[in-house]
Amino acid sequence: MSVPALTLYHNPQSRSAGARVLLEALGVDYAVVPIDFASGQNRTPEFLAINPLGKLPTLVHDGAVVTEQVAITIYLADRFSAGKLAPALDDPLRGPYLRWLAFYGACFEPALVDHAYKREPVVPSAAPYRDYDTVIDMVATQLARGPWLLGERFTAADVLWGTALRWTTGFGIVPKLPAITGYIERASALPAFVRAGEKDAALMAELSAASAAG
Amino acid sequence: MSVPALTLYHNPQSRSAGARVLLEALGVDYAVVPIDFASGQNRTPEFLAINPLGKLPTLVHDGAVVTEQVAITIYLADRFSAGKLAPALDDPLRGPYLRWLAFYGACFEPALVDHAYKREPVVPSAAPYRDYDTVIDMVATQLARGPWLLGERFTAADVLWGTALRWTTGFGIVPKLPAITGYIERASALPAFVRAGEKDAALMAELSAASAAG
Ligand SMILES: N[C@@H](CCC(=O)N[C@@H](CS)C(=O)NCC(=O)O)C(=O)O
Ligand SMILES: N[C@@H](CCC(=O)N[C@@H](CS)C(=O)NCC(=O)O)C(=O)O
Repeated sequence: MSVPALTLYHNPQSRSAGARVLLEALGVDYAVVPIDFASGQNRTPEFLAINPLGKLPTLVHDGAVVTEQVAITIYLADRFSAGKLAPALDDPLRGPYLRWLAFYGACFEPALVDHAYKREPVVPSAAPYRDYDTVIDMVATQLARGPWLLGERFTAADVLWGTALRWTTGFGIVPKLPAITGYIERASALPAFVRAGEKDAALMAELSAASAAG
Repeated sequence: MSVPALTLYHNPQSRSAGARVLLEALGVDYAVVPIDFASGQNRTPEFLAINPLGKLPTLVHDGAVVTEQVAITIYLADRFSAGKLAPALDDPLRGPYLRWLAFYGACFEPALVDHAYKREPVVPSAAPYRDYDTVIDMVATQLARGPWLLGERFTAADVLWGTALRWTTGFGIVPKLPAITGYIERASALPAFVRAGEKDAALMAELSAASAAG
């Protein structure tokens, strides 16, 4: 058996869940290295040598380290599904695709951190992500057009947004607006989401059996 | 004279300065729409219809809106300089290139906001950007390898990081470590940086003459 060129450092209950869904959607062969946060497996010298931020998802492909959900999404989809899950470089949807992916990392996530931790917001004109309400409104307005983030076409951006909105609405830090919940339902029903969920459930069971035995 | 397909909504004293440097580096034809923040030109209904976040840079290419520095960088470099300023999709540097670009938006910027506004940090394991010190350390360590972010090869990521580190060290929110100042100096000396600086100086002079006259 050949060793897959792709390794995902992964915890099913973390942001790496989306990376696993994408790998399933791409149909590529990949290895999983489970990372347990409770025992600090993401703060060992070995792991920090790979990703000094100590965060998941962390992907290694042919020796090259790729971190950051946004980078992993763009990288994998271009590499393994150019013109399909990723709009081609000259597709009119390419700009909007990259826009919504970059917006996820640069605006959605930091606005959510401020909201979740009830922090005093920075003045909107000085915050690169403006403010929570504007960000949520932009997302809801875009998804209301549907059925997918870019309209009729399902892309890798829907894998990131679909998984992210699922856990953030679950945690109550994104409102359960109909445009958002409908989108999550459509995404969650897709084979890659279902398959990743099954594999993650099996992995969780395996890890808790091992920890009970050890 | 044909109208360029690319329009940059721009203010020389803003984050769109980097987008202008990239357009100069690519050698493409583009139009500039100057946006004055003081008079609220980025909060008009017309501008918000293009970018509801009300932020610069905002780029329009053949009718498609691209916002977010990270998206604009990836988009333009792939479109007009694939395999040159952007590593090709199958280049071993592609993953690291995307990683450092995504890290810019998702980690560097929000960590800097917290630091600049002296906010109580969120616990590092809960912040998707961990914390300011780790982020600065990652950047400084990477640049110390040099001469460019990805080593010997200059890419569009250096346009974003070069311009960003220039203004953030200028504002005193990133430390003037030798690895960082050396990098800024190398980048600033490149023809595209010089040309963009000259064009921006001319634009500023034009705008202030117009506002004095009006
Ligand atoms: N900016 C990163 C954030 C990743 C992130 O926050 N990952 C969390 C898991 S959901 C993590 O690894 N936290 C563990 C820790 O920092 O201890 C990305 O977008 O990939
Ligand atoms: N996340 C955005 C941030 C852009 C941003 O913060 N732009 C500032 C200029 S430096 C802006 O337009 N501020 C004006 C305002 O919000 O009133 C990006 O990376 O492009």
